[in-house]
Amino acid sequence: MKNNKKAVVLLSGGIDSTTALYIAGEMGFDLYALSFYYGQRHKIELQAAGKIASRYGVLQHITIDIDLRLFGNSALTDNIAVPKGRNIAEMAGEIPVTYVPARNTIFLSFALAWAEVLESNDIFIGVNALDYSGYPDCRPEYITAYENLANLATKAAVEGRQKIKIHTPLIELSKAQIIQRGQELGVDFLLTHSCYDPAENGAACGKCDSCLLRMKGFKEAGIPDPTVYKVS
Amino acid sequence: MKNNKKAVVLLSGGIDSTTALYIAGEMGFDLYALSFYYGQRHKIELQAAGKIASRYGVLQHITIDIDLRLFGNSALTDNIAVPKGRNIAEMAGEIPVTYVPARNTIFLSFALAWAEVLESNDIFIGVNALDYSGYPDCRPEYITAYENLANLATKAAVEGRQKIKIHTPLIELSKAQIIQRGQELGVDFLLTHSCYDPAENGAACGKCDSCLLRMKGFKEAGIPDPTVYKVS
Repeated sequence: MKNNKKAVVLLSGGIDSTTALYIAGEMGFDLYALSFYYGQRHKIELQAAGKIASRYGVLQHITIDIDLRLFGNSALTDNIAVPKGRNIAEMAGEIPVTYVPARNTIFLSFALAWAEVLESNDIFIGVNALDYSGYPDCRPEYITAYENLANLATKAAVEGRQKIKIHTPLIELSKAQIIQRGQELGVDFLLTHSCYDPAENGAACGKCDSCLLRMKGFKEAGIPDPTVYKVS
Repeated sequence: MKNNKKAVVLLSGGIDSTTALYIAGEMGFDLYALSFYYGQRHKIELQAAGKIASRYGVLQHITIDIDLRLFGNSALTDNIAVPKGRNIAEMAGEIPVTYVPARNTIFLSFALAWAEVLESNDIFIGVNALDYSGYPDCRPEYITAYENLANLATKAAVEGRQKIKIHTPLIELSKAQIIQRGQELGVDFLLTHSCYDPAENGAACGKCDSCLLRMKGFKEAGIPDPTVYKVS
């Protein structure tokens, strides 16, 4: 059932943001998806976002090109090696080298700008405080601080026409629970992409933190993993 | 006297940000200047920023290209006419059509990312609550909210290595006071650019809000205005 309101959804093309998109859709929002090219070493993630947006009837999908490589200092934008074959315990409680400085802060700022232009009050972000406990900008207190900022930042807010809510429907879910929720909503996981270090043809490496969390999530959810992994 | 700390300074090439840069320099910071190309209708402002950074011994000057035109809805990025010949009373208390959605929020987000990489705690922004009372993202309460967010957002902050301060040395100054302060610090105002609608050769229109505030500022400061205005 449509609610006649617009939502801006941050869409990376992974399982989390795709499930967040479907949740926004199920809540009845008209969907506006926002992706970023930020000097990642592969564009496969963005192709995934495009296919998902198209499949799910997103009204407009904008990809913004921002060159975070200028600042350096992250495995996802520089040439630091992506860690492989770690166990989940090794990932927990530390901030991974794949951390990109202030990434969600930058992404939410663009989402806020677009929300103001669209006269939308609703921004969706698929952050998750459990599986990514190491990322400071995935925590509930961070999101609350951003919402507080957003409601002081825009002309529409100051004029009383806008009250931004940042929706984080996945923030307390495990990867397995996110996959279960996505499955219920009809997400085609084959279209989603998680791997930090895919092959040329898009096959996932099966060894980076993101692949390992994804595989574990499908296993725990009891749902077959449709991902194509590289044979090595 | 150098304080052996780094500061990220948002530098547009106008009087305000240039004076903020000089204030940061006088406080002893090593200077890192950040400018944005965001689909303004002219690049003269950015050329001004480059000359100022070079003249003042900025260690690194990065210009980031972000295409806010994708979102539309502002005179500075779209083809809406820039208002001309208004009196100061007409400008006061309203949010001008030259407002760019969430602009300072986006700019500060990139500054935060760079500050984290540089291991800097100090960001300077030349916002001014008096002459631009209409801009929500120039108000002290907005800056306080941003600082609060920043200190929840970065890995360095969470690990206790970073405590961001957003310096707003001009926030309570009038344009005339800013010009006086800049003059004391040796700012070459001929290098700065304010006009929203300059001629091809860079001459200022002398009629847009920004030109009118600039002219009034020099007059009230009792300092000769070196700006080249278009003859019409």
